[in-house]
Amino acid sequence: MNWERLREKILEENYPSKEEIDKANNLYEDISTYIRDNFDLKTYFAGSTGRKTCMSGDKDIDIFVAFSEDINRKELEEKGIEIGKKVFNHFDGDYRVEYAEHPYTKGEIKGHEVEIVPCYETDPEDIKSSVDRTPHHIKWLEQQLDEKKREEVVILKKFLKVQDLYGSSLKVHGFSGYLCEILINYYGSFLDLMENAQNWDETEIIDPENHHKDGLPGELKDKFDSNLIVIDPVDPERNVASVLSTENYSKFIYDSMNFLESPGIDFFQDKESSFQKIALKNEVEDRGDIIVIEFEKPDVVEDIIYPQMRRAHRWLKDVLEDEGFRIFNSGIFVGDKARIWFEMNSNLPKVKYMEGPKVFHGKKHVKQFKRKYDNVFVEEDRLKAKVEREYDDAKKLLKNFLDGDKEQLKKKGIPSHLSEKMVKYKFTDPLKENEKWLKYLAEKFQVIDNERS
Amino acid sequence: MNWERLREKILEENYPSKEEIDKANNLYEDISTYIRDNFDLKTYFAGSTGRKTCMSGDKDIDIFVAFSEDINRKELEEKGIEIGKKVFNHFDGDYRVEYAEHPYTKGEIKGHEVEIVPCYETDPEDIKSSVDRTPHHIKWLEQQLDEKKREEVVILKKFLKVQDLYGSSLKVHGFSGYLCEILINYYGSFLDLMENAQNWDETEIIDPENHHKDGLPGELKDKFDSNLIVIDPVDPERNVASVLSTENYSKFIYDSMNFLESPGIDFFQDKESSFQKIALKNEVEDRGDIIVIEFEKPDVVEDIIYPQMRRAHRWLKDVLEDEGFRIFNSGIFVGDKARIWFEMNSNLPKVKYMEGPKVFHGKKHVKQFKRKYDNVFVEEDRLKAKVEREYDDAKKLLKNFLDGDKEQLKKKGIPSHLSEKMVKYKFTDPLKENEKWLKYLAEKFQVIDNERS
Repeated sequence: MNWERLREKILEENYPSKEEIDKANNLYEDISTYIRDNFDLKTYFAGSTGRKTCMSGDKDIDIFVAFSEDINRKELEEKGIEIGKKVFNHFDGDYRVEYAEHPYTKGEIKGHEVEIVPCYETDPEDIKSSVDRTPHHIKWLEQQLDEKKREEVVILKKFLKVQDLYGSSLKVHGFSGYLCEILINYYGSFLDLMENAQNWDETEIIDPENHHKDGLPGELKDKFDSNLIVIDPVDPERNVASVLSTENYSKFIYDSMNFLESPGIDFFQDKESSFQKIALKNEVEDRGDIIVIEFEKPDVVEDIIYPQMRRAHRWLKDVLEDEGFRIFNSGIFVGDKARIWFEMNSNLPKVKYMEGPKVFHGKKHVKQFKRKYDNVFVEEDRLKAKVEREYDDAKKLLKNFLDGDKEQLKKKGIPSHLSEKMVKYKFTDPLKENEKWLKYLAEKFQVIDNERS
Repeated sequence: MNWERLREKILEENYPSKEEIDKANNLYEDISTYIRDNFDLKTYFAGSTGRKTCMSGDKDIDIFVAFSEDINRKELEEKGIEIGKKVFNHFDGDYRVEYAEHPYTKGEIKGHEVEIVPCYETDPEDIKSSVDRTPHHIKWLEQQLDEKKREEVVILKKFLKVQDLYGSSLKVHGFSGYLCEILINYYGSFLDLMENAQNWDETEIIDPENHHKDGLPGELKDKFDSNLIVIDPVDPERNVASVLSTENYSKFIYDSMNFLESPGIDFFQDKESSFQKIALKNEVEDRGDIIVIEFEKPDVVEDIIYPQMRRAHRWLKDVLEDEGFRIFNSGIFVGDKARIWFEMNSNLPKVKYMEGPKVFHGKKHVKQFKRKYDNVFVEEDRLKAKVEREYDDAKKLLKNFLDGDKEQLKKKGIPSHLSEKMVKYKFTDPLKENEKWLKYLAEKFQVIDNERS
């Protein structure tokens, strides 16, 4: 591989043109000037567009309006929305009010997605909410990233996007843009990051500003309890990589090995995946019994639905396994509907054995066990009892668990937004004709053909 | 319970009458006199009949002939057989030569099973083989057991017989007669043994002659590695209970608890067990898939066939489990035929996952795994690979393992005497009409009615 040539190609395809950057900058400057002139407030050009680490085609313009600490939160919120509305009106844009840590305005101006977010101008150690941290990130990165590094950030982001590792949402559990910027700045380039990442250990600590230079690595590991610990340059108490899951951390290491083994453009080009229905059908037949529980998708954001789906999945898995069922494979899907599925042996013998105490650990326990069960006998060094299994059919067990009203499901551990929809669950055919679902299953079962676009 | 009355009843049914004892003693005295007069050799009245700790109806008369250490083993063996033959001829008995540690003669005289066994008269520490230990056991027990204790030994033996715990054969793995005598002597009576046994711990050390009074219990545990360690009064290096299995040790403790909870004659009366074929049939249907491997019973003694069957069973179980099959229940049977059986899920999905190394423990292992398998992916923190299962059907796997000639089976770990017969195995119906087998299965599956006779 000629990395320089490959690098040029990736940047050509993904780094925004000078024209694009200028256009975004001009719009930001216009809005910033308007806010300064009319409200006497300073603004920050936040987000990757402001830092020129965005991908080409990225139309987001995030503008943070900095208020003094003198005014209270209520005033800040009111003022923030007022300014936002005026900006959108002045620039002839459509907008709506959204709610995150503060309410803020969001809308479209001249083909750009514009957000006007109020925040406090504080010292880093005095921030009141996470939005107040943003100006400090902007300042720190401004000092650190030169043009070369900004390009390397985009290369990394594209690499992560193609491997499904980009984004710190609770759906993806991957790498945030800010994390990409810190990693590139720390290692110097994408290639240097790859070279290092392939040797990352179970826990990796990166502390760019040496906040914890006097601390012990063990203490940091305990404190942050993540595989990748990247101390925020502007906040010693924050791990920038805290959302990254173990699986995605591991995938990234594996991908870095694969990339270094045979680097090529395919690591930076979106995959076009397809599958043959007949292959999926054959695969499903070769598998264990597949049970699919389907219900309406709750109308909440992904950052809520995904964690809840994972929790519900874990609950149902526990319910099945506690009863003795053996699960080979399972997962969640959120698309046209929400689905939780299991590949398993869905039937068990009616008879099972309860394990009791060891005979030589106290007469008391032996007596209790004997009182509780008939058919008690000794196997090896413990008591066992033959009992009839309450559920020898997995669907019956799931039916019993899921039947009930919303409140009952919540009491059983099903998260709130799901419980509402899960009361109207049904079992469906795994080969049910929904393109996205079938593609998901084909990927899970690895009967997919990936072609680079 | 009135224990005294119960005790009387048990003894009445099981302790030999004075007449029986006298008759056996007289025959022993006659033979002993004959041997002393003709060969100038001393004899010992061995076995439980000699010690009056036998059950009524026991017709065994074991006579040990003591040779001086001057003669060599070959002479001892020849002389031993010569004496035996002369005894049987003189007393008009039938006999044959058997082979244990030495060859010896065995036969019938006046309705008694008589054995003439040659041994060396040595100090306990100089014994050449285990038969030389017998005279020392006899002497030690003669000093210890009074009439009351001899009766208690018989009570214990009957108790053990009824619970299937009596005998130190490799079929039973239970309590030997000598072990019964030591236990009764040590605790004083059957009731005292019960009281103590119910509180026995995971390891119990009994050292009647305090051979190891200066040793640490931990050292003895390591040395003998049994649950019950009973140091032979005449040999500090020998555990009299070494054959007792963990399961039978545990059963004995459990039985002692049950006896003390509600003592009664039923613990001393043979069970008449019966079962309903329809109940067994229903049970078999409610179970997992039952695979029965049947073959001819090798023509060897139980002390050889049982350990070999257990070993073969363990091998086949490992073969199935290594391939991923789940076994709920399994066992061996030796009767009209030899059988090894498994209750299991006999089918598995064709697809399985191989577990690979963690990604962050060395590029080398990752590369090796990738070279070995297609379809490699990351799950949690390790590599996995999707592969086709070689055997998704348990019978096919067993067939593949068992098909071959005797030598091939031996190489695969099947013990010698079995391999010869197992080459002609077949799979049979678990409900095959053999009364003993069906009863065995009914007991295993606990669909049996036990009535006291």
